[in-house]
Amino acid sequence: MSAPLQNDNFLRACLRQPTEHTPLWLMRQAGRYLPEYNATRGRAGSFMGLATSPDFATEVTLQPLERYALDAAILFSDILTVPDAMGLGLSFAQGEGPRFAHPLRDEAGVAALRVPDLDKLRYVFDAVASIRKALLTTDDQGRRVGRVPLIGFSGSPWTLACYMVEGAGSDDYRLVKTMLYARPDLMHRILAVNAEAVAAYLNAQIDAGAQAVMVFDSWGGVLADGAFQRFSLAYTQRVVQGLKRERDGRRVPVIVFTKGGGPWLDEIAACGADVVGLDWTVNLGAARARVGDRVALQGNLDPNVLFAPPEVVAREAQAVLDSFGPPQRADGRWDGHVFNLGHGISQHTPPESVAVLVEAVHAHSRRQRAAG
Amino acid sequence: MSAPLQNDNFLRACLRQPTEHTPLWLMRQAGRYLPEYNATRGRAGSFMGLATSPDFATEVTLQPLERYALDAAILFSDILTVPDAMGLGLSFAQGEGPRFAHPLRDEAGVAALRVPDLDKLRYVFDAVASIRKALLTTDDQGRRVGRVPLIGFSGSPWTLACYMVEGAGSDDYRLVKTMLYARPDLMHRILAVNAEAVAAYLNAQIDAGAQAVMVFDSWGGVLADGAFQRFSLAYTQRVVQGLKRERDGRRVPVIVFTKGGGPWLDEIAACGADVVGLDWTVNLGAARARVGDRVALQGNLDPNVLFAPPEVVAREAQAVLDSFGPPQRADGRWDGHVFNLGHGISQHTPPESVAVLVEAVHAHSRRQRAAG
Repeated sequence: MSAPLQNDNFLRACLRQPTEHTPLWLMRQAGRYLPEYNATRGRAGSFMGLATSPDFATEVTLQPLERYALDAAILFSDILTVPDAMGLGLSFAQGEGPRFAHPLRDEAGVAALRVPDLDKLRYVFDAVASIRKALLTTDDQGRRVGRVPLIGFSGSPWTLACYMVEGAGSDDYRLVKTMLYARPDLMHRILAVNAEAVAAYLNAQIDAGAQAVMVFDSWGGVLADGAFQRFSLAYTQRVVQGLKRERDGRRVPVIVFTKGGGPWLDEIAACGADVVGLDWTVNLGAARARVGDRVALQGNLDPNVLFAPPEVVAREAQAVLDSFGPPQRADGRWDGHVFNLGHGISQHTPPESVAVLVEAVHAHSRRQRAAG
Repeated sequence: MSAPLQNDNFLRACLRQPTEHTPLWLMRQAGRYLPEYNATRGRAGSFMGLATSPDFATEVTLQPLERYALDAAILFSDILTVPDAMGLGLSFAQGEGPRFAHPLRDEAGVAALRVPDLDKLRYVFDAVASIRKALLTTDDQGRRVGRVPLIGFSGSPWTLACYMVEGAGSDDYRLVKTMLYARPDLMHRILAVNAEAVAAYLNAQIDAGAQAVMVFDSWGGVLADGAFQRFSLAYTQRVVQGLKRERDGRRVPVIVFTKGGGPWLDEIAACGADVVGLDWTVNLGAARARVGDRVALQGNLDPNVLFAPPEVVAREAQAVLDSFGPPQRADGRWDGHVFNLGHGISQHTPPESVAVLVEAVHAHSRRQRAAG
């Protein structure tokens, strides 16, 4: 477990330490745009069949790393495993999004909500351990090393609550926001349970070998100013405060990503996370100027760029790197940038575009360092 | 046509002039949450049957004003009338969003695109004139007056382009963004035609009697930083620059609303509009401090608040007003605030909530002025 890393650029960028190149990974990098993923999914029978099998999860987690020189692996799982373990009954119908059989709609349901027995999520922790093992390799000098770090993750308390109350995706969040405004007491209880559960869940992933963890606040951006701080950020912060931050003598960075969180950048940057994820609406250079001396930034290419020809993919990737600028500052200290998409990669993405992207990010960020 | 206004608080707020109370109107205030709207729609047979009939459009435009003391009327129409007049074939299937029979997908289609003959949109201008007439009343002193101002509107060039290329709503904007990144020349041509068409369309609404106009950049917020400025804001600005700004000796204010435009507030405020619309993610007080001396602000209650009990509706409305603060500044000058929702009102809204909202905004904003 404590084998050194062959490529630790990702962890170093998260911690604002010097890096050889700007590391990148992609949200949903193990996904439907890869034919080999679809083949494994076919064998597993369903999405949950994939996610609940440590062997299958390990197989698909490694697939993008075989194709591309990505700087991190991310656990193959779903953000909704926690509410599923709470007994809400998660399923994925063909061609649709997630659905809960037993959404939370009334006082009795909310009162009965409990932090789940983590044993029900054993398959996740087993997958983490299995992936760490699969990432081991032998370096030039015959040492056992990990190829790249493994990222664990969870949905944020608010994002989980959205699904738990709506019972599925939503385009107006009417049910969950009605509860928030009409019965804030019920909403706070759900969020408190979720925060405790998410912290325990992420700590168990860290125990199992996750070398960084990410909190996906996918739906924080649908909240009004004021409500975001009280109902999303406050509970994300509670999660972050509850996390183990060191394992095997190495800091475990925490990434918080609020899609649509641009208006609240300063507040999110103060939540205790090491890294703040940004969607593509945010100007990286401006964000760095505001909070770059306190947190690393992760982002933020529009995944739709990957539908353009190779020269455009390369140019847009360079534009993101140039917007952040050379990570080493004039005073010699380093700011941190992890290159990523501002959202999960589309299932329709041509796999060749990802190869172009990885090459462009590594090459251009090395040029930035050489020039600096 | 030049009858004075009985209540011109809305226009005065747009122009940062003194007001008796903070004026409010609601996006989609004539809509499916009102039983009388549904009855008229039933008689019209379809949404387009309503929108293309000046009589029906007048009837539904006036409906919310019969119920509530709203400070403005807004033309009942759709943002997609312009591409329909361009020959793209708009329809609304039952229970679905808009759809174009002939979306723009290739070079030939884009090359053939033309500013439409405004005569095809005659039904819109006739509706404007008809609504202005229907808004006339007789005041206490026996004078003919307009009850409240009438707002005209259009989609922004970018927002229209999204629908024109996608052919319908989208959750990832893959087709339109692929064109933007892969064939920016085609996208710029569509946007140039749209900008010219939208300016002509809004000017014809102003000629017909619209006393303010609003540009809905509903999908500007899906663009990446940089792309937003080049592909959305630049063309909205072109529209604004092409507008008649005065009629009957009175300034015709222009409102620009970019949903998700919070990250670009300063740039949007510099586009030439009198008023910038804000969604609920933006802190009104902070926005006022940044741009309130240059533009009025419109917004920004989350429409989901209207599902809460009356006391919560009133409290949240007061919170929005308090966030903006008393509009008269310490130096005696006035900043402008138009109260609105940060998005269209939901069809599921209880009509009683709107009554509570209108009363709360008027009463609390009068108290703010009395205290100030």
